[in-house]
Amino acid sequence: MKIVVLSIPNWSHRLVERLGSAYSIADVDAKDQIALARELPDADILVSGSFSAALAPLCRSLRLLISPWAGTENIDRSALPAGVAVVSSGGTEEPIAEYAIAMLVALRRRLREADRALRSGEWAFGFWGGAFVDELFDSTLGLLGFGRIGREVVKRAHAFGMRCSALTLHPERAVDVSGCAVGPLAELDAVDSLVADVDALVICCELSDITRGMIDARRLALMKASAAIVNVARAPICVERDLYEALRQKRIAGAALDVWYEYPKAAGERMAPSAFPFHELDNVIMTPHYSGWTRAALARRLEGIVRTIESFAASA
Amino acid sequence: MKIVVLSIPNWSHRLVERLGSAYSIADVDAKDQIALARELPDADILVSGSFSAALAPLCRSLRLLISPWAGTENIDRSALPAGVAVVSSGGTEEPIAEYAIAMLVALRRRLREADRALRSGEWAFGFWGGAFVDELFDSTLGLLGFGRIGREVVKRAHAFGMRCSALTLHPERAVDVSGCAVGPLAELDAVDSLVADVDALVICCELSDITRGMIDARRLALMKASAAIVNVARAPICVERDLYEALRQKRIAGAALDVWYEYPKAAGERMAPSAFPFHELDNVIMTPHYSGWTRAALARRLEGIVRTIESFAASA
Repeated sequence: MKIVVLSIPNWSHRLVERLGSAYSIADVDAKDQIALARELPDADILVSGSFSAALAPLCRSLRLLISPWAGTENIDRSALPAGVAVVSSGGTEEPIAEYAIAMLVALRRRLREADRALRSGEWAFGFWGGAFVDELFDSTLGLLGFGRIGREVVKRAHAFGMRCSALTLHPERAVDVSGCAVGPLAELDAVDSLVADVDALVICCELSDITRGMIDARRLALMKASAAIVNVARAPICVERDLYEALRQKRIAGAALDVWYEYPKAAGERMAPSAFPFHELDNVIMTPHYSGWTRAALARRLEGIVRTIESFAASA
Repeated sequence: MKIVVLSIPNWSHRLVERLGSAYSIADVDAKDQIALARELPDADILVSGSFSAALAPLCRSLRLLISPWAGTENIDRSALPAGVAVVSSGGTEEPIAEYAIAMLVALRRRLREADRALRSGEWAFGFWGGAFVDELFDSTLGLLGFGRIGREVVKRAHAFGMRCSALTLHPERAVDVSGCAVGPLAELDAVDSLVADVDALVICCELSDITRGMIDARRLALMKASAAIVNVARAPICVERDLYEALRQKRIAGAALDVWYEYPKAAGERMAPSAFPFHELDNVIMTPHYSGWTRAALARRLEGIVRTIESFAASA
């Protein structure tokens, strides 16, 4: 059985270590046309975060595509040869869910302002500050997206005493999670109702033609002024200017943004994450697309790929 | 039945609203000796966060003390007349538990540094930052204290995939929480083992002769270098200089401190919360004793007092 690892440097040796010599494993740079033409035709499994129409004619034996990323917007499913299954390695959903819940607490508590004030001797909230903050307990959480990440978010939110409802692009595939209502993300009315009803919105869906720009000025205006947003999916699900303006004008309470509109092209490069000055806002938590980027998650991701390959091989 | 509310301004009218006219309710300033002498002798119930020996001779009918605070270090139990029960109103344990878990996530993720860096265009962690952060999933949590707050922390920690163990001053009263080992906080060896074993330590016990200074330089040195502390109890449980030095020298990974060594004497007063410059440290989250100070918690606290009074009256 042959596995091609596409444009994920230094991964094939980890798979070799874990899988042993029963598999033929090749590392290929997606830009190397010669290597693609040589390695892809007899590959049974492709480990890749992307798939474009240009690859399809080369994939004569392909039966399984394993994506190491949670996001699948770079996999053109319509271009995949018939019968090729797509599976995500998983492994990052736990820390992403931790991030989502913790950032909601931080937003509700105005953590950034409270910490900064106390560092200068000002007791800005609490008994000595004369002002209250808010909590998650007994509040409502809406999720755009209900895949692996959404389910882990709901598990934790329930322990925090939140009432959850979720919308998904794939209601037919939704796993039943006790106490969480699930509806169709593709229906405009369902999205309008959800965003209007909830105290907190966690965005954890695919970026697709349906979800791109889904959170725009109109929907932001439907939300409660006390509502908070956490985006761990892809930035363009929220219209950049509309989100910035809603936060600047405090039409919603706050947002924790881990995904961005602009990214560095290489590690170490400095780069503002948006054309808008989100960094001037106190009601925003800004993080560098790291919600799933923990040591343990990367190890679980590799194990997820190994398990998927082994069970595929066992059933082949 | 008579209730005295001691030094909690503006509370008696809320109790009157909720309890109706079946009770006689008096607001008394603890410094007003004349009012104390007039109101206390026939009081059945005292609502107060403190009790000193000076009050005892005046309490001729007292049978119940309800504390609206989670901390009980100002209640001198040895001075209470025989047969007086002490009950906490509760209501703040949910937001305090939320705070504890969220701050652990924030510490593990170096949230303060990540947010500050990205605001200046630097992607300090994650894929583009070339550095990993850590998660709570599959790590261990130790609790000093296992009362209402500790149990709420464990409930949430379990949903986050943490393994929990707790020590309590009252193991004989400990409620069994599935999957959480409980031992005696009064035993030196048990404390040493707990702090040495865990990835995270949440301090949520009473301040008493046993716990004062319990986390000192010796015990901080026993902890893992990767361990984080959250203190939502009382600051003097950690030796001030020792905690500061351990954090400054990064002998532990970080701490979220909601309770402090110095407090303002009045709302609005500026006041550094410690003689040591914790505010210079990036691995500390500093908050103004607000972990339980949410709007909803205050409402639950009042309901807790009302329920306690009504059930006491029903059984009297």
